[in-house]
Amino acid sequence: MRNKLHYFFAPRSIAVIGASSQVDSPGYVIFKNLLDNRRAGVLKARVYGVNIKGGVSLGEKLYRSVTEIPDEIDHAVIAIPAKFIPDVLDECGRKNVKVVTIISGGFSEIGNVELENNVREIGKKYGLRIIGPNGLGVYDPYTGVDTLFIPKSKDVDGKEMINLARPPRGFVAFLTQSGALGGALLDYLCGENLGISKFVSWGNKIDVDEIDMLEYLKDDPNTRVVAIYVEALKERAREFVRIGREFTLIKPIVILKGGTTEAGARATQTHTASLAGDYAVYIGAFKHMGAVIVESVMELMDASKALALQPPARGRNIGIISNGGGPGIITADLLEKRGLRVPPLSDDTLRELKQAINEGIIPTIATFANPIDISGTATDEAYVRATELVLNDKNIDLVIILALHHPPTLTSKLPDKLISVVKDSKKPVLVMDIGLGELSEYVRRRFEASNIPAYALPIRIVNGACALVNYGEYLARRGALDEYIEKWSPPRISG
Amino acid sequence: MRNKLHYFFAPRSIAVIGASSQVDSPGYVIFKNLLDNRRAGVLKARVYGVNIKGGVSLGEKLYRSVTEIPDEIDHAVIAIPAKFIPDVLDECGRKNVKVVTIISGGFSEIGNVELENNVREIGKKYGLRIIGPNGLGVYDPYTGVDTLFIPKSKDVDGKEMINLARPPRGFVAFLTQSGALGGALLDYLCGENLGISKFVSWGNKIDVDEIDMLEYLKDDPNTRVVAIYVEALKERAREFVRIGREFTLIKPIVILKGGTTEAGARATQTHTASLAGDYAVYIGAFKHMGAVIVESVMELMDASKALALQPPARGRNIGIISNGGGPGIITADLLEKRGLRVPPLSDDTLRELKQAINEGIIPTIATFANPIDISGTATDEAYVRATELVLNDKNIDLVIILALHHPPTLTSKLPDKLISVVKDSKKPVLVMDIGLGELSEYVRRRFEASNIPAYALPIRIVNGACALVNYGEYLARRGALDEYIEKWSPPRISG
Repeated sequence: MRNKLHYFFAPRSIAVIGASSQVDSPGYVIFKNLLDNRRAGVLKARVYGVNIKGGVSLGEKLYRSVTEIPDEIDHAVIAIPAKFIPDVLDECGRKNVKVVTIISGGFSEIGNVELENNVREIGKKYGLRIIGPNGLGVYDPYTGVDTLFIPKSKDVDGKEMINLARPPRGFVAFLTQSGALGGALLDYLCGENLGISKFVSWGNKIDVDEIDMLEYLKDDPNTRVVAIYVEALKERAREFVRIGREFTLIKPIVILKGGTTEAGARATQTHTASLAGDYAVYIGAFKHMGAVIVESVMELMDASKALALQPPARGRNIGIISNGGGPGIITADLLEKRGLRVPPLSDDTLRELKQAINEGIIPTIATFANPIDISGTATDEAYVRATELVLNDKNIDLVIILALHHPPTLTSKLPDKLISVVKDSKKPVLVMDIGLGELSEYVRRRFEASNIPAYALPIRIVNGACALVNYGEYLARRGALDEYIEKWSPPRISG
Repeated sequence: MRNKLHYFFAPRSIAVIGASSQVDSPGYVIFKNLLDNRRAGVLKARVYGVNIKGGVSLGEKLYRSVTEIPDEIDHAVIAIPAKFIPDVLDECGRKNVKVVTIISGGFSEIGNVELENNVREIGKKYGLRIIGPNGLGVYDPYTGVDTLFIPKSKDVDGKEMINLARPPRGFVAFLTQSGALGGALLDYLCGENLGISKFVSWGNKIDVDEIDMLEYLKDDPNTRVVAIYVEALKERAREFVRIGREFTLIKPIVILKGGTTEAGARATQTHTASLAGDYAVYIGAFKHMGAVIVESVMELMDASKALALQPPARGRNIGIISNGGGPGIITADLLEKRGLRVPPLSDDTLRELKQAINEGIIPTIATFANPIDISGTATDEAYVRATELVLNDKNIDLVIILALHHPPTLTSKLPDKLISVVKDSKKPVLVMDIGLGELSEYVRRRFEASNIPAYALPIRIVNGACALVNYGEYLARRGALDEYIEKWSPPRISG
């Protein structure tokens, strides 16, 4: 039997309960998202609006109840005041709806514990799976399901500006207990062009939780890595660790824990109605399950990108190729401070690098301490040769290419030339090009289109490298690294 | 007498020695930068091209020697092969040129120590001040002096793409020993819209150094903070600390030290021909002089922005206002991990916040543990009231506003409304709006146009807050904080 969670992301039909004609109300925004995606051909599901007052919204008839819809409903999205939800949920149960996303707040997070328990019980009675309440719900760029009530644009002095675009298709599933963080993260991901496979914001998390999603995502072909923001795990913590420890043999998990300090923990108590618990206990458990533990939103993104696109590293020895001393030195400093190593290259590699100088391919002023600096006068060919040699160095487990595009000697063909060298490698490769200008973005996107993660700052590429090393060391401890790398293949956008 | 370094940034006339008609050669790019800026009216200096072969470039006659130019020359920029530089420098001396920027490499960094010493001696003989060699030279957005040989655009499949734009006018002077880092940093700063006052990349640093620049920048009205990337200080380290310790009573200094680990230090030995020295000694000295010490390029930017636009904090107690639990909690966690405090608000503030709920201004579901979460349903007015109250809380030394613009209840007027509350405050205020979309950028730029530093990620606003707290604590230790804050006024773009 298919995992029932499938209906959240790929329903045949969706009802929006609380669809309305009031612009920018949550029900309106969600109804519009879905209708737009259906009209654009992305969403295949049939879409229905429900409003107790009936009427019309966005040119569509609104049904007074989900039970009036002349079709089976797989996924109901509820965006109405909390107190009406038990009755509506009961109707969903009688209608044989499969899964429900509850957007509305007004439950345990403001003390309405009984109402929340009541909703949970109704769900159980009918076997309805529930995401929420008090979250943003789900977004799936592959199927077009989008329950985010955040408008895509807003009026600024009479001009429509993008308020929150949706990220493109990719390989990272993001699960978040905080809706605000979730929305903000999506906004950031769009700008970074980091695609996602699925997004779930579950707020009070009264039913579907991390464990359910791991069981579901294990077999999701689009998901290569799961990134989680969690404040508290409540009663299922032990099971999460057990399931997580199986999951991480198949796909990596990255976790950002909120409430790890006194101030943070104090705030979580009043947020999503949960105790953050003892940080050390959480971190110990996450380590045991093999999760890559991160400390910031930025690191969550950087680690997820590396893990989604590249295989884990076989060790902590990093080779750095650069055309500029300073960026290479800063990167080496940051790597070593994080416990990685930037060791001397092997004698064979050094010999061949010197040979490349003699052949006139690498500039005479190049220096081969690791980081190796092929200098600001390096050409595309110098980069290609240095990369080939360092990639094959037996002392090196992961290669960082700092391909600063600025000097006049480098052409816009450099990314393609380097991609052809590294694309079939099972030794991980990361690229950095510092900058936010047109060509910087172009270079990074060119690499990423071929699954080479590209970063705009030294600290961010170091975050990526640490994730690949940490995950590799975990798999090695479990005796699973060789098989994992053997089976590993680059991700591909499906559908 | 005026500081002679003034001629680097505001010369009456500039000669480019090595100007050529060969597109994308360093001399061509520099000559073009200057002519473009002069034609655009930004650069007031008269511009002359020099090439030993004579000829014409960019429609301008090229003189065969600087001595042939029928005008006095304040600033000569040299971009010719290293071996010819002694003779050319001698000509500059005889011509009574005031200052010289040497772009060319080929000196001590590749073992040509004698040539470098020779160049230094010729400079001394004539009293010529020299920036370089082996660097990018100088860029001043106020005067249009631009000796960067990095082309502004490059051809990508027949289309011109921005290769390296130049940052706008602002208040941060960047001094860097690494040209590659300097160029990359400028590229990044453009994208972040972080303006600069001056940029100097001095490579081998044979004459003008950090000490000279501090003495000059002390009185530069456009410079509010000095950001330095340094690998080694050579023989003038003690004097740097002594001068720096005077400087930091007037303006803050932010330092990123390259070569702080074994691998990093090994690389600096072969880069700009200098020993990185003992990290602990350096850091001790930098602390003594009151510099804000940072560990990454990102932190260098984040700290500089905060210090340029806001006064230092009187203590380490941070108040956080947010409309989303997760981002507030993550920010609080990061602050406390860095040694700052996120303490409970005073009873008075709590009473008035509750009063604001009773008045219907702040949503009933708001929570007032610090971070205070006015919830995703907060309106502009809720933000304004909460900000007024937290800003006046005697327990709070610095206010962080997490103004996530996404919810439908917030309008695009929020930045202006908050600016009017905080603009005259001498308690520092920082703003965060996570995201890279159109409205996220708009919100941040709106704040920054009124000197409120705005950040796109929690870790970055934490970098800013730490800088303001560290600098405030340093000034307090020296008994200088009260006077500093009393004299402090917001920066203004001049000229």
